[in-house]
Amino acid sequence: MMAEKRPLITMTTDFGEADYFVGAMKGAIYSINPAVDIVDITHSIPPHDIYSAAFTLMCCHADFPRNTIHLVVVDPGVGSARRPIMVMTDEHNFIGPDNGVFSYIYQRAHVNRIVHFTTEHYFRQPVSATFHGRDIFAPCAAYASKLVDWKMMGEEITDPVRFNIPAPVVVSEEHIRGTVLHVDRFGNLITNITSAELTEERIGAGARVRIGKHENLLVLTHFAEANQTELFAYFGSAGFLEIAVPRQSAARVAEARRGVEVEVVIPART
Amino acid sequence: MMAEKRPLITMTTDFGEADYFVGAMKGAIYSINPAVDIVDITHSIPPHDIYSAAFTLMCCHADFPRNTIHLVVVDPGVGSARRPIMVMTDEHNFIGPDNGVFSYIYQRAHVNRIVHFTTEHYFRQPVSATFHGRDIFAPCAAYASKLVDWKMMGEEITDPVRFNIPAPVVVSEEHIRGTVLHVDRFGNLITNITSAELTEERIGAGARVRIGKHENLLVLTHFAEANQTELFAYFGSAGFLEIAVPRQSAARVAEARRGVEVEVVIPART
Amino acid sequence: MMAEKRPLITMTTDFGEADYFVGAMKGAIYSINPAVDIVDITHSIPPHDIYSAAFTLMCCHADFPRNTIHLVVVDPGVGSARRPIMVMTDEHNFIGPDNGVFSYIYQRAHVNRIVHFTTEHYFRQPVSATFHGRDIFAPCAAYASKLVDWKMMGEEITDPVRFNIPAPVVVSEEHIRGTVLHVDRFGNLITNITSAELTEERIGAGARVRIGKHENLLVLTHFAEANQTELFAYFGSAGFLEIAVPRQSAARVAEARRGVEVEVVIPART
Repeated sequence: MMAEKRPLITMTTDFGEADYFVGAMKGAIYSINPAVDIVDITHSIPPHDIYSAAFTLMCCHADFPRNTIHLVVVDPGVGSARRPIMVMTDEHNFIGPDNGVFSYIYQRAHVNRIVHFTTEHYFRQPVSATFHGRDIFAPCAAYASKLVDWKMMGEEITDPVRFNIPAPVVVSEEHIRGTVLHVDRFGNLITNITSAELTEERIGAGARVRIGKHENLLVLTHFAEANQTELFAYFGSAGFLEIAVPRQSAARVAEARRGVEVEVVIPART
Repeated sequence: MMAEKRPLITMTTDFGEADYFVGAMKGAIYSINPAVDIVDITHSIPPHDIYSAAFTLMCCHADFPRNTIHLVVVDPGVGSARRPIMVMTDEHNFIGPDNGVFSYIYQRAHVNRIVHFTTEHYFRQPVSATFHGRDIFAPCAAYASKLVDWKMMGEEITDPVRFNIPAPVVVSEEHIRGTVLHVDRFGNLITNITSAELTEERIGAGARVRIGKHENLLVLTHFAEANQTELFAYFGSAGFLEIAVPRQSAARVAEARRGVEVEVVIPART
Repeated sequence: MMAEKRPLITMTTDFGEADYFVGAMKGAIYSINPAVDIVDITHSIPPHDIYSAAFTLMCCHADFPRNTIHLVVVDPGVGSARRPIMVMTDEHNFIGPDNGVFSYIYQRAHVNRIVHFTTEHYFRQPVSATFHGRDIFAPCAAYASKLVDWKMMGEEITDPVRFNIPAPVVVSEEHIRGTVLHVDRFGNLITNITSAELTEERIGAGARVRIGKHENLLVLTHFAEANQTELFAYFGSAGFLEIAVPRQSAARVAEARRGVEVEVVIPART
């Protein structure tokens, strides 16, 4: 009953699902490696939003098996000089444009090597000016899935583009300051605050969360404990403090979006 | 030329396609069983709408091959005490929360057994408070696809949650009363009336349909017979009487939605 | 490490992703051929828009490996007399309704044969009046992927339906007239003008593009060369002259849509 394992490629793009772009990329992959499995993470990254793509990839890449190839094409700079790269870590390989979209990976994974794809032999010819997803990234992912040696495909680089990832700040024992990193489809606000800052002890001491003019949000363990109409905070599935409201959009209720400041206030010990 | 068959898992969720949730579930599946095929039924169930998920699954589950595992995660009660279950029928296995989402299956399939997943060994650790799709349901589906014995994974239960499925009523020889079960993307209204109630004979006798203030809808065999601007009724691909209007949304024209009453009037014999 | 190749079927429909239709078609395919790979090109063709489906398929079909089966179900005439067909070319097979959706294929590929599927043995029984995607097209694609002889499945025809594909006109050495064929998700306007009409030489001579009241659009090689707020033209990834504006929708800026006229003006030689 055990069937054969095939190499796995995931895709994360801003191409949407209405055009032929994703299909063309998959066709390019299967034309090079017909025995591969492809998983769509999402094609609904907001156009050109490398922050959203980076966040999405950060949240789920580790759920995939070892040796998965994560292909990301969110590429506002297509046609300019930004480099096509492969980030090789202990667990996975990441392929996409060198525009910062792998910033969380650089921060969190053990990177063994970053390869700049320079060997045009592995590109679809002719390379168009506008669709490197089909012409460079998908073919390189397909060849990588066939275990072509990276030394054949390009050259190692050490200066990848990274964007600043806002870090939460423990201002004092009574005060933590963070930022909304992402808003999901349900309108939940995902912050950059983790259990390293907002510890069990601080929660136990009566920590409350503030976002905009909404104060005193409780930090709960389960959705089921929440008051049905009030904003509350909890640690979400990606390991971050999130702000939600049952069956409504917290983004709408709190009038908040990515980049908005979030504060945690902890009562002083007496 | 005949390649190898692999176990098949379908997915039906309300996670949408914009976030990392579906990707994370697929990663969790492939990490446990790398030789599996996954088919998305839909991830666009309206958030928390177990009725819509139940209807969707009812309409297409039987089109899949024997032994398919149907994974459904529409779970307003995540984090509360509702049980993760597997419904084992003669043809398929169904995995999801015990919240009524399998109500149509209980009504229509031969259920051999319902298993409450209790063995945490088969869960992703740690189990988060909010994402049982990734941490419980996907891993259990993957292990089930590897033919792990259900007795290892949990305990049999006999009291699953079911919701009431409104039944059509044959009030008299001249009158059938039904309900809209579902509205599809084209705005077609799918009712609970089948050919068991609205028989060939009753159609032949001149049955007409009423919805809201729209009366005397014809019951046609083909879309092509329909007047281009008028509501009409026909038996749709799921076996139910549906109400449509060519190239428009019947839901909009009839100002109707799920739960709205539909009547069939059959002329009295003279 | 090299796993086994499986037959490949692509799908292009207007069924959307919210209903059970696509799932039911895939179930029907896997029930007949469990060892197949299925790639979604898109299910977001605007309802009944055979022009959009034809364009989408034209742009990406050639990226898939030899012997791919391209299944297209955009079928305003379901239930009427239009024929289910398979277009067999040197490279691929195309399966769908005979309503013109393969017009670009007839124009561009070497068609060996067009088969009208008439053998009901290969249909799902009973064939519904409204869902030939599940009942005829998907099963026929699955059987074709198992290499069933086309002579078993139907009869050759020579009179397929085709729609007129507007051709660009080189009115004079100073004037090319074209048409918008398609608007993509980013709002880019794809015209029918190729490098056969707008040659390197004419670009070099200072060709400018007009759409509506917007004149003097530059013809650029790269997005990166574009002025950040102005419409410009370039040859896109499908080989056609496209009109875009950086980070905005050209369709909105130019108030244009499919069918709108586009002109290229080339300065007279002096």
